[in-house]
Amino acid sequence: MKPISIIPVPLSQYEFAEFGDVLETEKRDSFPINKGMCRRYDRLSDVTFDNGIGTPSISIFRGKPYKLPLQLKLLERHPFGSQAFIPLHSNPFLVIVAEDMNEEPLLPKVFFTNGHQGINIKKNTWHGVLTPLFNECNFVVIDRIGTTSNLEEFILTQNIIIEAFPKKV
Amino acid sequence: MKPISIIPVPLSQYEFAEFGDVLETEKRDSFPINKGMCRRYDRLSDVTFDNGIGTPSISIFRGKPYKLPLQLKLLERHPFGSQAFIPLHSNPFLVIVAEDMNEEPLLPKVFFTNGHQGINIKKNTWHGVLTPLFNECNFVVIDRIGTTSNLEEFILTQNIIIEAFPKKV
Repeated sequence: MKPISIIPVPLSQYEFAEFGDVLETEKRDSFPINKGMCRRYDRLSDVTFDNGIGTPSISIFRGKPYKLPLQLKLLERHPFGSQAFIPLHSNPFLVIVAEDMNEEPLLPKVFFTNGHQGINIKKNTWHGVLTPLFNECNFVVIDRIGTTSNLEEFILTQNIIIEAFPKKV
Repeated sequence: MKPISIIPVPLSQYEFAEFGDVLETEKRDSFPINKGMCRRYDRLSDVTFDNGIGTPSISIFRGKPYKLPLQLKLLERHPFGSQAFIPLHSNPFLVIVAEDMNEEPLLPKVFFTNGHQGINIKKNTWHGVLTPLFNECNFVVIDRIGTTSNLEEFILTQNIIIEAFPKKV
């Protein structure tokens, strides 16, 4: 089968909205707190999880970089909670997400961040694994911890290639 | 009344434990995920909040820097939820916390971070406001959003001065 080629595009709140929230201050409202010494960009995203069978928790992921072009082999989703990735560095990373149809992912959308953006993926949303591109680097992750399984994986049968993209846009 | 002088000390998990968790990978266990491409430093801290009257949420605070020495005038606490501060930069910031006695804070402890540490403050724990020191900078904040008040403030009557500290230790 002929491979499907995807060129990553810049991440934006508008295009990502159906999959989750972009965590950034750009074009977002804020209000002053602490006698004007601080501005609060409030409630950029909610942490969701199914009550009673889990707890929202803070972890750190240390990811090794992937090289482009990259064959996308796997998507996953977490039925019981949102999952946020906040970079502790300024390197763009890939954000791979897909709509669902009949419990299977459609063709993925692939974004790259601007170095200042984090994301919070809605619960039960198909997404690729954490995909840094430039260095081994840390991300804060906020997701549900619980005793029941919260992972579904989908092995892609189509040959999908994520292509290199220009670093400066 | 003679002022009380406090010199900040380096933040460590051991000394901070009674107030919350330090969010860092140093000396923490991890396990591999994503076919070895990522290490998960799992569950460094839980996000806590009182169910039914609030939702854990992700915000960004943009804080202006404070100059040392600094007179500490106010402590606050959030009875219904934890509050995490994750720096989106590498500048040390102050972490000011205090034990409680009879609903009032005792003499604060003042820590400075190493540039790679975040914190999650336990619910109902006295703490100072966000205190960056070097530049205006952003922090991801994870705390409870709700319709009921979640803030108590305590105006200090003692004259407490937080002194400058050596940048390199």
